[in-house]
Amino acid sequence: MDYAKPLPSYLVKRYHGWKATTYTENQVWYRRLATEGQRPRAMVISCCDSRVHVTSIFGADQGEFFIHRNIANLVPPYEPDGDHHGTSATIEYAVTVLKVAHLIVLGHSQCGGVQGCIDMCAGHAPQLEARESFVGRWMDILKPKYGLVADIEDAHEQARQFERHAVVASLENLMTFPFVSSAVQDGSLSLHGLWTDIGEGGLQCYDPHNKRFEAV
Amino acid sequence: MDYAKPLPSYLVKRYHGWKATTYTENQVWYRRLATEGQRPRAMVISCCDSRVHVTSIFGADQGEFFIHRNIANLVPPYEPDGDHHGTSATIEYAVTVLKVAHLIVLGHSQCGGVQGCIDMCAGHAPQLEARESFVGRWMDILKPKYGLVADIEDAHEQARQFERHAVVASLENLMTFPFVSSAVQDGSLSLHGLWTDIGEGGLQCYDPHNKRFEAV
Amino acid sequence: MDYAKPLPSYLVKRYHGWKATTYTENQVWYRRLATEGQRPRAMVISCCDSRVHVTSIFGADQGEFFIHRNIANLVPPYEPDGDHHGTSATIEYAVTVLKVAHLIVLGHSQCGGVQGCIDMCAGHAPQLEARESFVGRWMDILKPKYGLVADIEDAHEQARQFERHAVVASLENLMTFPFVSSAVQDGSLSLHGLWTDIGEGGLQCYDPHNKRFEAV
Amino acid sequence: MDYAKPLPSYLVKRYHGWKATTYTENQVWYRRLATEGQRPRAMVISCCDSRVHVTSIFGADQGEFFIHRNIANLVPPYEPDGDHHGTSATIEYAVTVLKVAHLIVLGHSQCGGVQGCIDMCAGHAPQLEARESFVGRWMDILKPKYGLVADIEDAHEQARQFERHAVVASLENLMTFPFVSSAVQDGSLSLHGLWTDIGEGGLQCYDPHNKRFEAV
Repeated sequence: MDYAKPLPSYLVKRYHGWKATTYTENQVWYRRLATEGQRPRAMVISCCDSRVHVTSIFGADQGEFFIHRNIANLVPPYEPDGDHHGTSATIEYAVTVLKVAHLIVLGHSQCGGVQGCIDMCAGHAPQLEARESFVGRWMDILKPKYGLVADIEDAHEQARQFERHAVVASLENLMTFPFVSSAVQDGSLSLHGLWTDIGEGGLQCYDPHNKRFEAV
Repeated sequence: MDYAKPLPSYLVKRYHGWKATTYTENQVWYRRLATEGQRPRAMVISCCDSRVHVTSIFGADQGEFFIHRNIANLVPPYEPDGDHHGTSATIEYAVTVLKVAHLIVLGHSQCGGVQGCIDMCAGHAPQLEARESFVGRWMDILKPKYGLVADIEDAHEQARQFERHAVVASLENLMTFPFVSSAVQDGSLSLHGLWTDIGEGGLQCYDPHNKRFEAV
Repeated sequence: MDYAKPLPSYLVKRYHGWKATTYTENQVWYRRLATEGQRPRAMVISCCDSRVHVTSIFGADQGEFFIHRNIANLVPPYEPDGDHHGTSATIEYAVTVLKVAHLIVLGHSQCGGVQGCIDMCAGHAPQLEARESFVGRWMDILKPKYGLVADIEDAHEQARQFERHAVVASLENLMTFPFVSSAVQDGSLSLHGLWTDIGEGGLQCYDPHNKRFEAV
Repeated sequence: MDYAKPLPSYLVKRYHGWKATTYTENQVWYRRLATEGQRPRAMVISCCDSRVHVTSIFGADQGEFFIHRNIANLVPPYEPDGDHHGTSATIEYAVTVLKVAHLIVLGHSQCGGVQGCIDMCAGHAPQLEARESFVGRWMDILKPKYGLVADIEDAHEQARQFERHAVVASLENLMTFPFVSSAVQDGSLSLHGLWTDIGEGGLQCYDPHNKRFEAV
């Protein structure tokens, strides 16, 4: 069976449009990036969600951000067991090879993964509890935090709070990686926890002193 | 220890600029995306590399593409063992929940992950062979393909070929996921393998008939 | 209140891409079209539905088709009462000024307007019966045909049949326009009734001899 | 009399070519559009003129734009009198059923309808003044704006100005529809006025602050 197909023609047309404009305008810079290598100032860990304004909110151009995107912007704990750990590999590469100065975890409103975790913890999503559910097993990373929001009655508010706890969980798990915590301690790396509101374009930053998210 | 920091001021400034311009222009659409949910037409699996033109080459806006980015745009084989499989979770969510029509694997030139795999396979990167090397263990996914390029003497050409094999390996592994192969077979999902040249802005598409990449 | 807004930036980018590629490639032709005027060979009356392949199925380029699109590709009967009749004005212009050789009415599957008319006729859509419902009053054009499908029990089949009757109703109403029927009679204009299946890409043409739609 | 004819063979041939190429490449997406329904982000109101680049300038594919096309891209004022109002029906469907985020009125150069209105207002087109002239009665919508260009001596410049006034007239009339103005006021809909130059491929956007059209 032929499992691969040609690209749909509307994407081909748009690509040629990009090549003739954006690429042409930036050719010199893109060529330098290609020959000299990338040197991103920051890494962003965000959700795969098509609605997340990952780098547009920072006016970013090619070369500025090393970006990992997974379901619910989660970082698992440090677990060097010889298995394939895609997220841990991205962090290791960013911190030890590229030596990024900032590591940003970007959560967002209306997160389907976070909502799925709430449903699973509340016993409303048995399919996510199945051993073979990749989404369920991935959201297990966030499960230990469920107790912090279990009593919130308003479903909307519960989800918003849990989305923020997902960011904090990722920051905490990042600190279990020896190369992350040592870089933070020697001042060569700083961590940032953000949460963005898709519909309103809001952006909040985690303040570790008072353990709250505040508008930037 | 305070592991989280306020956002650097240059990013705060850029965010406020985005909010006052791009966000304002698109507010109506972003609000609809927030209330009605995402409905992306395609999923893109690309590299974290800061230089990759993931969606700008397709003139994409918020809501069009569900995006997973990891080291070297790799997909591991189907392995429902109850562990955290971040990449598999993104694919499961895109195909079974969002029901995307297209799944695009986008490889690129000058890929550090792919080069690392070559170095490891050639015996020049012992640090990547260590059990605790997340990058090394992640690149193990690509190792079985090394034989196909081992004899290419020109290092540049060898890397370019291996980058394309990484795309094909991901397409092949995608087909080991039951929900992917059944969606491909019933005509509700199509797979596409692409490779882009960062410096020259080129784009090639994998043609499964003659097993070659050709310019789009 | 400012009722008009700037164009969203993703559309601006795509426009500049089009200008640098498609426009540039066709500049000579577009300039001739501008200075010499249009001379379309055919007029197409189709639905506003975003999914209808109006001219792409005919590989059409700028200048080939004069296109009117409204809800459910309907043509009202000839009624020269001095009111604003948008659809009648397009037909008058195409036939008497541009003297197109072909007039194509293109219906389609999954038509929301046609379904609304069925619901209204079956008494399930009181809101469409309100005097101030523009959609309801527009679909009144098709109401006289409802008896032909009222007894079809399968809802899917009923809609598909009614979509085809909408095409025939438009052809019949076209013939009530004196300038249309006289052009048809003197052989300078021919009418064509088509129906397309959005999902399967099928195309059927109305055969007036046996009064059936048949695959082209 | 048989008023309907088989499709000309050159169109049949092109259709089969489209089916074997573009349709096949996009089959998965077109099937999803058919089963899940359309969800266009924007509505475009443009002219029937065969030379207008309605959506190609935006790299649009099936499903992106809900499109109404009539003579001179005009919107009549709100008039819920129980008659057939084709244009008003399209706007009602787009705004209240599909809930599009953007409503774009796209005018263009060399518009035959606009020129006809100038000729009629200047007393040079008695045939358009006849009660039974559908084009004349349709262009009555634009007549109240004639005073704004009556004194422009250069005929070319006069037409270009009047084409832009047609766009503004449509935007103003759109705001007389209660469901449009309330959607604009609550931030769920934005209006955009554009004018495109057919020969030069230019695109201008109406800026309501200084009441001028400016290149995008």
